[in-house]
Amino acid sequence: MRILLLALLAAGQCSLAADDRVLGFDEAASNAQRNIESRLDASIDKNEMDQWLRRMSAKPHHAGSAAGKENAEFIASLFESWGYDVEIAEYEILLPTPKVREVELVAPTQFSASLTEDSLAEDPSTSVREELLPPYNAFSIDGEVEGELVFVNYGRLEDYEILDRYGISVEGKIAIAKYGMSWRGIKPKLAGEKGAIGTILYSDPADDGYGAGDPYPKGAFKHESGIQRGSVMDMPTYPGDVLTPGRGATRNAKRLKQEDAITITRIPVLPISHKDALPLLSAMDGEVVPPDWRGALPITYHFGPGPARVRMKAEFNWNMVTAYNVIARLEGSEYPDEWVIRGNHHDGWNHGAADPLSGLITMLAEAKAVAALANAGERPKRTVIYAAWDAEEPGLIGSTEWAEHHAKELKKHAVAYLNTDGTSRGFIGIGGSHVLERFFNQIIEEVKDPRSEISLKQRLQASLKINAESDQEKKDAAERADIRLDPMGSGSDYTPFLQHLGIASAKLGFGGEAAGGSYHTLYDTYEHFTTWNDPGLVYGETLPKVTGRATLRLANAQRLPFEFLGLADNIALYVSELEELADTMREATAKTNELIDSGAWAAALDPNKSLGAPARHEPVPHFGFAPLKNALERLQTAATAYDAAAKTSTVTSEEINNLLYTSERLLTRDEGLDGRPWYKHHIYAPGFYTGYGVKTIPGVREAIEQREYEKVEPQIEIAAGVLNNMAERIEQVTSLID
Amino acid sequence: MRILLLALLAAGQCSLAADDRVLGFDEAASNAQRNIESRLDASIDKNEMDQWLRRMSAKPHHAGSAAGKENAEFIASLFESWGYDVEIAEYEILLPTPKVREVELVAPTQFSASLTEDSLAEDPSTSVREELLPPYNAFSIDGEVEGELVFVNYGRLEDYEILDRYGISVEGKIAIAKYGMSWRGIKPKLAGEKGAIGTILYSDPADDGYGAGDPYPKGAFKHESGIQRGSVMDMPTYPGDVLTPGRGATRNAKRLKQEDAITITRIPVLPISHKDALPLLSAMDGEVVPPDWRGALPITYHFGPGPARVRMKAEFNWNMVTAYNVIARLEGSEYPDEWVIRGNHHDGWNHGAADPLSGLITMLAEAKAVAALANAGERPKRTVIYAAWDAEEPGLIGSTEWAEHHAKELKKHAVAYLNTDGTSRGFIGIGGSHVLERFFNQIIEEVKDPRSEISLKQRLQASLKINAESDQEKKDAAERADIRLDPMGSGSDYTPFLQHLGIASAKLGFGGEAAGGSYHTLYDTYEHFTTWNDPGLVYGETLPKVTGRATLRLANAQRLPFEFLGLADNIALYVSELEELADTMREATAKTNELIDSGAWAAALDPNKSLGAPARHEPVPHFGFAPLKNALERLQTAATAYDAAAKTSTVTSEEINNLLYTSERLLTRDEGLDGRPWYKHHIYAPGFYTGYGVKTIPGVREAIEQREYEKVEPQIEIAAGVLNNMAERIEQVTSLID
Repeated sequence: MRILLLALLAAGQCSLAADDRVLGFDEAASNAQRNIESRLDASIDKNEMDQWLRRMSAKPHHAGSAAGKENAEFIASLFESWGYDVEIAEYEILLPTPKVREVELVAPTQFSASLTEDSLAEDPSTSVREELLPPYNAFSIDGEVEGELVFVNYGRLEDYEILDRYGISVEGKIAIAKYGMSWRGIKPKLAGEKGAIGTILYSDPADDGYGAGDPYPKGAFKHESGIQRGSVMDMPTYPGDVLTPGRGATRNAKRLKQEDAITITRIPVLPISHKDALPLLSAMDGEVVPPDWRGALPITYHFGPGPARVRMKAEFNWNMVTAYNVIARLEGSEYPDEWVIRGNHHDGWNHGAADPLSGLITMLAEAKAVAALANAGERPKRTVIYAAWDAEEPGLIGSTEWAEHHAKELKKHAVAYLNTDGTSRGFIGIGGSHVLERFFNQIIEEVKDPRSEISLKQRLQASLKINAESDQEKKDAAERADIRLDPMGSGSDYTPFLQHLGIASAKLGFGGEAAGGSYHTLYDTYEHFTTWNDPGLVYGETLPKVTGRATLRLANAQRLPFEFLGLADNIALYVSELEELADTMREATAKTNELIDSGAWAAALDPNKSLGAPARHEPVPHFGFAPLKNALERLQTAATAYDAAAKTSTVTSEEINNLLYTSERLLTRDEGLDGRPWYKHHIYAPGFYTGYGVKTIPGVREAIEQREYEKVEPQIEIAAGVLNNMAERIEQVTSLID
Repeated sequence: MRILLLALLAAGQCSLAADDRVLGFDEAASNAQRNIESRLDASIDKNEMDQWLRRMSAKPHHAGSAAGKENAEFIASLFESWGYDVEIAEYEILLPTPKVREVELVAPTQFSASLTEDSLAEDPSTSVREELLPPYNAFSIDGEVEGELVFVNYGRLEDYEILDRYGISVEGKIAIAKYGMSWRGIKPKLAGEKGAIGTILYSDPADDGYGAGDPYPKGAFKHESGIQRGSVMDMPTYPGDVLTPGRGATRNAKRLKQEDAITITRIPVLPISHKDALPLLSAMDGEVVPPDWRGALPITYHFGPGPARVRMKAEFNWNMVTAYNVIARLEGSEYPDEWVIRGNHHDGWNHGAADPLSGLITMLAEAKAVAALANAGERPKRTVIYAAWDAEEPGLIGSTEWAEHHAKELKKHAVAYLNTDGTSRGFIGIGGSHVLERFFNQIIEEVKDPRSEISLKQRLQASLKINAESDQEKKDAAERADIRLDPMGSGSDYTPFLQHLGIASAKLGFGGEAAGGSYHTLYDTYEHFTTWNDPGLVYGETLPKVTGRATLRLANAQRLPFEFLGLADNIALYVSELEELADTMREATAKTNELIDSGAWAAALDPNKSLGAPARHEPVPHFGFAPLKNALERLQTAATAYDAAAKTSTVTSEEINNLLYTSERLLTRDEGLDGRPWYKHHIYAPGFYTGYGVKTIPGVREAIEQREYEKVEPQIEIAAGVLNNMAERIEQVTSLID
């Protein structure tokens, strides 16, 4: 079935290549739209973008800061000056800031971590420290603990499996974990579940520091004193204000008591620099960690526990602060009740030049250009809403509160949500709802890479061809006409729209050619960004051409450019992955059990080491995937029929468009996911134990991964249900246009 | 055909299990032999072994030293006291020792490398420095050079391919290379071929130092001042005395002029510690090296060239010294003209406790036990020769000269050569001629692991099952009754016997559970060995039980235990590897060329980096493997027929035994390998560009790897020829016993 589908896709592309229309537009409308887009391109002014970047990154501007409010007001004034209806939507949110931060080695030697980042003569911004929040992890609980250190690698589930094999527990200990390989909030969450009393996070120089590349200011990588800040709120349970899950945090909203907010960590967490980590890790002993656990500090890495003993104390001001979302609206000329929403947050942990301002300035450039077109008579047909979110960093709070607050209207009116955040240089990266896969592929076929004469898509395809590793990647690179959108987990403001409300969403940005370590440190400055990330804003100037096309095509399309072959093909991939996951786990479990039972493990283990055999698990049963596969087949058939009809038919109506843009809602269920009802989407979710990392068809996938065998088939039924609903909707739309 | 063969092997083992005879012995003889072996086991005395180890490792005892001569005399006296006919066979060899060693950073900062290893209070032996040779690379040419540094990773061919892609040349520069991943002599050889003017070698702490495990004396790994010595003679061209290739270096032998000795490096080489490497590497700049090139020093690793500029000077005393091989002979009671030769070298770079004495003491224990049996009336039927070689470290010189000197007699009389060298603890490791594969498997089925109740083979099989990674390894672990012998490249004294003379050979030792970094440093002491490698000589006591069985079974067998199914099966593997190598290279080359020609590489490269596309190569043609496959099939048929006949027949004779033990000679050709005629064996050879690492069917394999396409089919004919000769021999023997 996959091959058939790919052939269709290929055929589809050929016909689109021959037929030069913009998806969702007839020939005349396509010409008009492309004319508008040329004018949009011409009005992007990177000098102005650079001025905005410089201005808004001049000072630390986290949520709750005076500079953050100033930036919100500046953004609002820009939108107003361009002709938007602007509102600053305020929410009252709980936002802890540090009061006491102490990390102290108390045995076998004494050392106090500095927990501060150095100002650098080479980068004047790093001396602008007014309102600077020192390094901390937002939504760590208050606490003072003392205990032996245990090194837990990246603090993931698989790392604890290794610790178990060595007979090492974090129970009553302080876990020290490297940043990376999972979302940071997972590290204290898992350590807490395993009985640790505290967690220390640091970036190992192998991953981000001199081991990865020259440190700032000589290069882009983490300075030895650099510390990644960041939220450790349990966002895979729910993001946003911890006191108002599912509700907008308006002034008078009903709130949880703080002690009932389950997304605050259960143990204290503090981040430190690798310079501060060195004395702690040097003082550890016990068995030497496996090769893939080792970092680039000039020491032998040991598991512990101890003898290094650490006292850590974390206390926070648990303040209520106001988050300022700037909401700028341009009423649609023909369909004002159909909203295209475009967002980027404005709060930064520090100066935030890369994160989020590099993305924000591209949204502002786009918005200015769209307004200029409107003022010149080319007002978008649908309503366009630009949102500059506040308080994204502590937990997607600004966007989540607004989305929760306006949930009912949004479910009714929102056509799509398009997100940007920090952007850099290299290759276009697009993640999102697969109903928009063909739509975005067409756009990147039409925008040129700024440093070559080929399209963004051609450059990305070249890269995929060269870097393909798995069989699937090789097959895709060789055969697939369209580039797959990355399925979205979490990590930016699309989450409430996509996963809570079922609004088709996407994220866009450039990357891949500017590795570095300014992320969430004092060194995320204008100087760093313009030296190492995107000097000259070469790609910054290109991004609004992509996102502007996306916004305006969604706003102006005669029939909305939703398409279902890409969705069906990606779902087919996920279903095959799930079957393979079950098969692989079944075989690996059987193999491991056999090697344990036959005595092979006991025979082969080194008697001088404490490393034991892997854990024995219950055999993995065979699961009935048939409901999912039947639903998939129906989806594929429906998508194929819609595609055939859509190619020839120009029929459209408000009803058809409404049925199209609300189709993504059908992939959600009001009950949400098992154990985390805030997450409604049943195709895309952040992993409960990976954080940002996506789990596709999460109900089924996580039940298998977590060996909750009895949950798998009920989850298969549920997933099949949402796919059948989607198929039915596609059939309905097809019958209307055919 | 492979499956058939495996089934046969499996069947073969069943019948051997049912039929409990020792391979090559009838039932009565088997019982007698096993009785002898029990007595052998009982007479191994690890306390005495420990005393020998302590005594002989008390002082540095390299070839040419007074302590080396003393050890030779001590070994000779032991053999004499046990009743052997002992000769000290002397050869006059060229052996450079250091006169001047200087490595100095001259820009951008100044630093002089200490080039010395620290004595440690915890290890008294490290203060015994009489006659100590400082760290150097034997057979580096004299020279003083100054130039910019280029970091060449491990200095292998594939590393230069990466350098080429970055546009970096070592021409006129000094290459600094990490020890490891290839034999050290390859590093200056390749650097010299690429135009470098000097080479500096160091052990990165990621590979051998704090990055790998706790450094000595806390742990077993390389002390920060530790420096691996070692020969850089071009042994893949020919080993042994550089002045007398192919001839014994007797006093009056005809010698080359030193300037005509092509196995001396063409550029100067010096080894340094990682402590001394740090200032040099820190002073380098240029692009950052790829992730898999990085080590564990606390710096960002750069390619250079420069700005680090180094002056290095190496001058040597090019002395003629005497090598003392101790040759101890026990004339066979029935077949004195059939010789079983057993060897281990006695010279060490320093104290040499692990290398070579840990192996030497096991040979001495075996020899003493064999002599005791002989004195008690159980004299071996064939002549047994124990050899303690001198000057192995500088280039397998003692063994090579003796083998060359006695080439004619050895080709006539030598049944097999069994080698040991340093040994440690863990799993039995056996490499060797595959005609002995079943023979050694039977032995390790009968010797128990000293720390468990299972046989050495069972423990090794358990480990292979658990660690199998490739499909072939998994298949072998699951299905193959016998453990494959590792095919032998080079690295110890078996090379002249196997690869120059075509004598079936093997190497044996324990390892896998005692990683560490004393190799060729001042820290290879009694203290280090008995703390970290094999405390209590638990495995040291076991090895003579294995090697003693091998020696005595070869010496006493009624019909020599050569067997050909194992050979045929391994050759089948090599042939399939060669076909796969050609196919993989063909596909990869075509793919790379297509990605270059289509512009994908140009499109995907990062314009901010100097990394270019991989090199374009001529398409890889299809090669006619038919002659090799036909010869293989004949070999498989012949091996199967011999196996069937040998199982039922007890026919034997001196003619049959002679035909059996000289069969390995048929795998050699007088012309030797293309470009290196000293190497006569056409199934096993050290790689011309890997050093110790084996290349099986080397004529064909290296022609493909080096893209000398026109040589491949002639080499296939040659390899088919030796296999046909072997098959013919097997057919002949089968006809005699059937």
